[in-house]
Amino acid sequence: MKYAVLGTGMVGQTIATKLHALGHEVMMGSRARGHEKAVAWAKGAGDRASEGSFAEAAAFGERIVNCTAGVHSLAALAAAGDDNLAGKIIVDIANPLDFSRGFPPTLSVCNDDSLGEQIQRAHPKAKVVKTLNTINCLLMVDPSRVPGSHSIFVCGDDAGAKEEVLGLLAEFGWSRGQVIDGGGISFARGTEAYLHLWVRLYGVFQSPDFNVELKVAGKAGQAS
Amino acid sequence: MKYAVLGTGMVGQTIATKLHALGHEVMMGSRARGHEKAVAWAKGAGDRASEGSFAEAAAFGERIVNCTAGVHSLAALAAAGDDNLAGKIIVDIANPLDFSRGFPPTLSVCNDDSLGEQIQRAHPKAKVVKTLNTINCLLMVDPSRVPGSHSIFVCGDDAGAKEEVLGLLAEFGWSRGQVIDGGGISFARGTEAYLHLWVRLYGVFQSPDFNVELKVAGKAGQAS
Repeated sequence: MKYAVLGTGMVGQTIATKLHALGHEVMMGSRARGHEKAVAWAKGAGDRASEGSFAEAAAFGERIVNCTAGVHSLAALAAAGDDNLAGKIIVDIANPLDFSRGFPPTLSVCNDDSLGEQIQRAHPKAKVVKTLNTINCLLMVDPSRVPGSHSIFVCGDDAGAKEEVLGLLAEFGWSRGQVIDGGGISFARGTEAYLHLWVRLYGVFQSPDFNVELKVAGKAGQAS
Repeated sequence: MKYAVLGTGMVGQTIATKLHALGHEVMMGSRARGHEKAVAWAKGAGDRASEGSFAEAAAFGERIVNCTAGVHSLAALAAAGDDNLAGKIIVDIANPLDFSRGFPPTLSVCNDDSLGEQIQRAHPKAKVVKTLNTINCLLMVDPSRVPGSHSIFVCGDDAGAKEEVLGLLAEFGWSRGQVIDGGGISFARGTEAYLHLWVRLYGVFQSPDFNVELKVAGKAGQAS
């Protein structure tokens, strides 16, 4: 599968490296072709790895993974171009975290919207699936970093797209029993708002290697 | 111990009934003495149970439990009276949920404040401890409704007050290993924002009998 990974930061690097290790073709996208970090990543990864502008990456990818900083995601996807995104799955793993006032960050949306919905509204022909945004990026691609079973959320308006993303999550090591399908993309309001708790727990544990397991009465050890 | 339980709704009834069953003296507080639900509760509970205004209950209680609807909590505590609250622990289990636009509710605070902090600021001589607000009230007083271990958060600026509330949580059935101390009262921004996820998970599971267990790498099955 051909993937566009938008974003050159730690999340983008981690996701791109994992997808590449799984055998996929990966183009890392940034504001302009030749971005230092993207060039270094593609060179280090070797075969099947390349880099380009957001638009070039989106045109290349059969699937798009949004790994940009959430406050810049809409601009990055606008630069990627609606035509390059049309009909494709956008796996949105970003959070609209605003660090302008320091740590812990605030969220640039609250209560009546989410980044996931904003992206879906901005690109109605794309199929936005929000997932993985409730955990650290190293854990996203290696759930065994945290012992035992723990939960991951997925939501989006297109059932078929969600099913495909479940396949991607399985490639990353997530079993079906760990996945909670929250329904439509507006569920992203819940998983993004959870970041308010996540960033504070990060402060408490002094480690990003944690996650929650959903436990539901009558469903022993299993949330779905 | 003498408890004031502020609020006559399902949360107040559940907490008051549990505290009373544990042998405590409980006065249920409402806007005015003689509130139908409070009278019915006190009559049904019998000895050691009474009802009165917010002020009468707060004067009576050695500890205060805020079980009012979050959007009305500040008014209820103002009515309770600063002098009646001074030096006492306010166990704040409320959430600032705004149902005026239907379900799921929004929060009346977001990003840069929390109800817990608002209460602490309004009553600086009281010791506000936020806890139990991340779960349904039946689960608050009977953690075994959800199988296995799962987590509860506690935060507040007064360490001694938090320690006392840990004792109350133990009376309710929560073990030390289940409790995550989030630090100061501003941690309430995290646990209150989590409600955005909670209300949506309630929709997914069609049951309020669920909770999360925090899992942290290097701390097998245990968050704290």
